[in-house]
Parts: sequence; C-alpha cells; structure tokens
Amino acid sequence: MITIDQIQDKIDNLNKPKGSLGRLESLATQICMVQQTLKPRLSHPCHILFAGDHGIQREGVSFSPREVTWQQMINYTRGGGGVNMFCRQHGFKLLLVDVGVDYDFPEKILATGITDTERKIVNRKIAYGTKNFLHEPAMTKEEWDRAIVIGSKQVDAWYREGSNIISFGEMGIANTSPSSVVMHLLLDIPLEKCVGAGSGLDEAGIQHKLDVLRQAVANYKSLEDRPPLWQYFCGLEMAATVGGMIRAAEHNMLILVDGFIMTACVLIAREINPDVMKCTIFGHCGDEDGHKRMLDAMGAEPLLNLGLRLGEGTGALCAFPIVQSAVNMINEMDNFQHAKITKYF
Amino acid sequence: MITIDQIQDKIDNLNKPKGSLGRLESLATQICMVQQTLKPRLSHPCHILFAGDHGIQREGVSFSPREVTWQQMINYTRGGGGVNMFCRQHGFKLLLVDVGVDYDFPEKILATGITDTERKIVNRKIAYGTKNFLHEPAMTKEEWDRAIVIGSKQVDAWYREGSNIISFGEMGIANTSPSSVVMHLLLDIPLEKCVGAGSGLDEAGIQHKLDVLRQAVANYKSLEDRPPLWQYFCGLEMAATVGGMIRAAEHNMLILVDGFIMTACVLIAREINPDVMKCTIFGHCGDEDGHKRMLDAMGAEPLLNLGLRLGEGTGALCAFPIVQSAVNMINEMDNFQHAKITKYF
Repeated sequence: MITIDQIQDKIDNLNKPKGSLGRLESLATQICMVQQTLKPRLSHPCHILFAGDHGIQREGVSFSPREVTWQQMINYTRGGGGVNMFCRQHGFKLLLVDVGVDYDFPEKILATGITDTERKIVNRKIAYGTKNFLHEPAMTKEEWDRAIVIGSKQVDAWYREGSNIISFGEMGIANTSPSSVVMHLLLDIPLEKCVGAGSGLDEAGIQHKLDVLRQAVANYKSLEDRPPLWQYFCGLEMAATVGGMIRAAEHNMLILVDGFIMTACVLIAREINPDVMKCTIFGHCGDEDGHKRMLDAMGAEPLLNLGLRLGEGTGALCAFPIVQSAVNMINEMDNFQHAKITKYF
Repeated sequence: MITIDQIQDKIDNLNKPKGSLGRLESLATQICMVQQTLKPRLSHPCHILFAGDHGIQREGVSFSPREVTWQQMINYTRGGGGVNMFCRQHGFKLLLVDVGVDYDFPEKILATGITDTERKIVNRKIAYGTKNFLHEPAMTKEEWDRAIVIGSKQVDAWYREGSNIISFGEMGIANTSPSSVVMHLLLDIPLEKCVGAGSGLDEAGIQHKLDVLRQAVANYKSLEDRPPLWQYFCGLEMAATVGGMIRAAEHNMLILVDGFIMTACVLIAREINPDVMKCTIFGHCGDEDGHKRMLDAMGAEPLLNLGLRLGEGTGALCAFPIVQSAVNMINEMDNFQHAKITKYF
C-alpha cells in the first residue's frame, strides 16, 4: 500500500523549491494514489464519445437543430471535428459510439468489430433518441441498464488493450437540459442557476428552456412512484458515460472530464459509486456559471480555464499534456541528493 | 497583408459554435497576425535559459544560497531539472547560456560551437555576477550592451535554424529583487506590492528584502546622472533575455513567457520596442500577487494558472501544447460548408 506520505516525501525531494510545481504536484499525488505506485505511467489514452438524441429537444430547448447530432458524428469519422484534432495532437484513440442517435448511419461507416473502430461509428443503438421527459421518463429501466452495460463494456475493451487513462465526450443536441436538471436535483441548487445558453440561446430562449425544465421537474416530483432521476431525465449517451466512468474507477483507471454534460455524469456516477471521484481529473472549467457552480459543489479543481464550450470532451483532451507533465515530474526530475544541489528549503 | 477580419472569418467558419474554442481562438488570431498567414506553423521551438548571479544577493534578500545558480546549471546539463523535463515533453531544444554566473564551469560541459549545445553550457560570461545595486549600478553601459547583443545573437542563430517560436527562462539566485524594482519603477506600483517571498522567504525575510530594495531605489533616485533603471538594477541574464526578446520580435517570432522575472523582462523590452507585446504569449500566471499585478497592468491574459513558481520558464513550456492546439484548430478543423453540417449559430 502506497501512502500519501510516501508520495509527498518523493515529491518534496525533487530538486525544486518545495511546492513550486503547484498543481502538478497535487495531480501527481492523485495519480500515484490511483495507480498505487511511486512511478506512475499513462498508457494507451482513449477518448470515448457516446452520442444520442433527446426527446426534450422537441420542446425547442436548444438553439441547434436535431440533425447536428448525426451530422457531427459523420464529421468526426472524417477527422474534421475539434475532438479529432485534439485526439491526434495528444495520441488518443477516438472511439465513437452511437447509443441513441435519431439516424441510421450508412453501413460503410459502421465498425464491424472491436479492432475496426478507427474513423468508424460503433453501433450500439438502443433507441432513436430518448422520450420527451416533459411528459414521460426519457427511458425505461431496461434501457438505462443496457446503456450502463454498453458503457462498461467499451471501457473493459480499452482496459484489456492496456489503457489506464480514459476521457469521455458526448454529442447530443439538447443535452445541457437533462444536465441542468441533474445538477438542480442532486446538488439542490435553484434551477435558474443551473440553466444556461447551451450552444447559443438568447435571453428569451434561456427563459423558455427554464420554463420547460421547471415544468418537467414539477411533473417528475408529482409522480407517486418515481424512477431514479437519471433514468427519467438523462440521454442514452449520458447513461453509457456513467456506466463507463463507474467501470473505469473499478479498474483504477484515470478519468479525464470536461464540460457541463460530462461533469453532470460524474455527479450521477459518484452517487452510484463514490470511488469515481478519486479517479477523476477535471480538465477544464468553461465560462458558463452552471459548470463552475457544479465543479465548486464537488470541490473539483479543474486544470484549465480557457473558455472552451465546444463539448465533445475537448477541454479534457486539451488538459492531457498537463497530466503527462505531472507524471514526468515525479519520474524524471532528479532529487536533491543525487543532483548534488544544496537543498534550499 | 492578412487582416484580423480575414482571420476571424476563417475561425468563425470552422464547424463549431461561434467562439466555442474560447482562448484558443484569440490565440490563433494573434499567431496568424504575427506570422501574417491563415495557415500558421510552429517550427523548431527553442527554450533559451540565460543564467547570472546578482550582487544584491550579498544583502541576504534571497532564501536560496548563491551556489544554487551554478549547481542548477550543471543539473540542467544532466537533464534532471524541471526545465529539462518540459523541453523533452514538448520537443524544445534547450540552450543554456552563462552570461554572468559566479563560477567557472568545467571545460567538459562547455559548448565548443553553435552545433554543440545539447547538454552543454554556452559560455558568454560577461562577469562573475553583477555588482550590488544597493551601492552602485549592477552593470556598466558596456556590459548591458554586450548582454543585449549576446541575447540577440542567440535568437538569430535559432531563427536561422528555422525556429519561429522561442521561450525564455532564467537561473539567477536573487533575481526576483531586480524584477520587483523594475515593476515598481516602470508600472508605478508601490514597492511593497511588488515584493514577494521568492524561493521561500518568511515574513521577516520579505520585510528585510523590502527594506533593502527601498533603500536601493532611494539611492538610485538621488543620483544626478542616472543610468537607465535596467542597467542599474538588472542581472546580466535579464539583459540578455531583453536582447533576445527584442530580436525575436524583429524576426516576427512568437515569444513564450512565464514567471515574475521573465515578465519583468517583457516590461523592459516593450519600453525599448513596443512590438514585443504583439509577439508575446503569456503562458502562465502563478499565485504570487506581484506576478498577477504585473500581468494585469500589461493587459496580459496568461493561458495557465497552475500555481507553478519554479522559474526556469517552466510555465511557458507547460503552455506550449495549448499554443499548438490553437494552430491545429485553424489548420485542421473542417469548415461548416465542407463538412456539410447545418451552420448552427
């Protein structure tokens, strides 16, 4: 068993003023604890992007049209999206998984096996989008469970390939709506402080979104026999992500997270398995108030604050080199004794 | 002539909600303007670390002993320092230049020519440290001029090798002291707000440092025929850096900057040539109040805030992948039209 004290002792003996590598030091400590070693390694990083459509989108809660979900997925298979660029830059495998997109992708871009995933979409479609949670649960218990298993199995496959760090992204027009509700209900923060502009709503649009979500929450609360809130409100891509995060924590993998939706998934995942938090590295905090509040409520310290709000998990990917720096620091920096430097602290 | 509008137009047509890559977008704009192209490139990144000792160190203004300057330089030649780790990770050539270290380095680790700089120290020693500016100018006009030329020539050499991005680091025990004075005099900020703990002073140590610097500034101001403040207070490593920054701007190279001392050098460089600011990317802001105030006063928006305070330019290096992401974004992301995605803004 490697202890915090052993890790701190190693870090404090690297040839630098004590604490002078700031956030890299706390990050290295977290990674060493998760991996239970003083010589951590990052291997086979992978970015899993689950996609699904949302029934609530029919209420006009999103600025973007529904078809953008499938159009962007096709775009990712061509390598032209933001997520592709970051994956290339940082050596991440990109895995695109359809769990609920309202579109039949052409056969030629569907993956045929576990090794045929490059620039392909893995078809694990459970439904052509969720139901409209203004009127009924977004999915059944069976659908939730299936999505959890799908997420879990995708992570298992990467774990078997030798991966010990995984980041998650999403594509699903309107998925800030369920995320806002999750934040509101799990953190007990007033709904109006959980709702933002998403991909570009104006003031009137935000008000409409808030009205719709308020009514949906009232409807949910009035039910006698309520399903878990995540099953009632979430998208299938969110359910699969939650399943993936929980499984990653069971494997002691590092989980890289960015964005309002993925952070909402962490909120759900830690309700089911609190160990998720030990493994999670929050890569980025955007300018959206809701995202900041959610991170604060979890005591999360995101690595970056670059005003990104593209989604797709891009902020998590963007933070990867810093995670690598933390690992390099503890492995590569010489200690005072060996470097023959007067210990100056 | 490439204009801001042309760059903005290209960025706004990439397949993402407008502005959704936040700071990467403003960074890409800056880089395109400096390079005068819509297809920017980063080539042959180089980190130049100038080192020198300080006469003011004799007044006990630093927590670290004087010999740490030369010990750390030797450590860098062995690859075990923080700066080595970051250079390896991000593919930077590291150039170690002695302009004023109070030590004779062994012949075997001195570079013998311009191509023999890997793990060697380039010997451009002007003096064995500066004079004590509590009593006299740190250097003569001739020494300042020589250091400026040395910095300039090192940058010229890398420019000829094809480099278009350069970062600067420093090693010089006690060099927060001249940096505080530079900040105080150039930005007209009260001296007590410019003085911090450096590598680890306690309250009494900071008070002593402040007393010494206050007296030094009073002495300087009482002179009838004052030399420029940079010549009076700065270290030789700072002078060489200023020369390098000015030359890099003349070549339209990008200048990556981190840390209190290097930021003070930007303050001086922009006094001499304001174009330096157009080329400068501020990589990191530490937790030190003085550094934050200096950046704010320049309207600088640092990319990272990771609480690093190691010096050596490590925060600038740590930010490099983000600069690369900005370049990749504008070159690699598909546009809406070509990707056949409904433009959703």
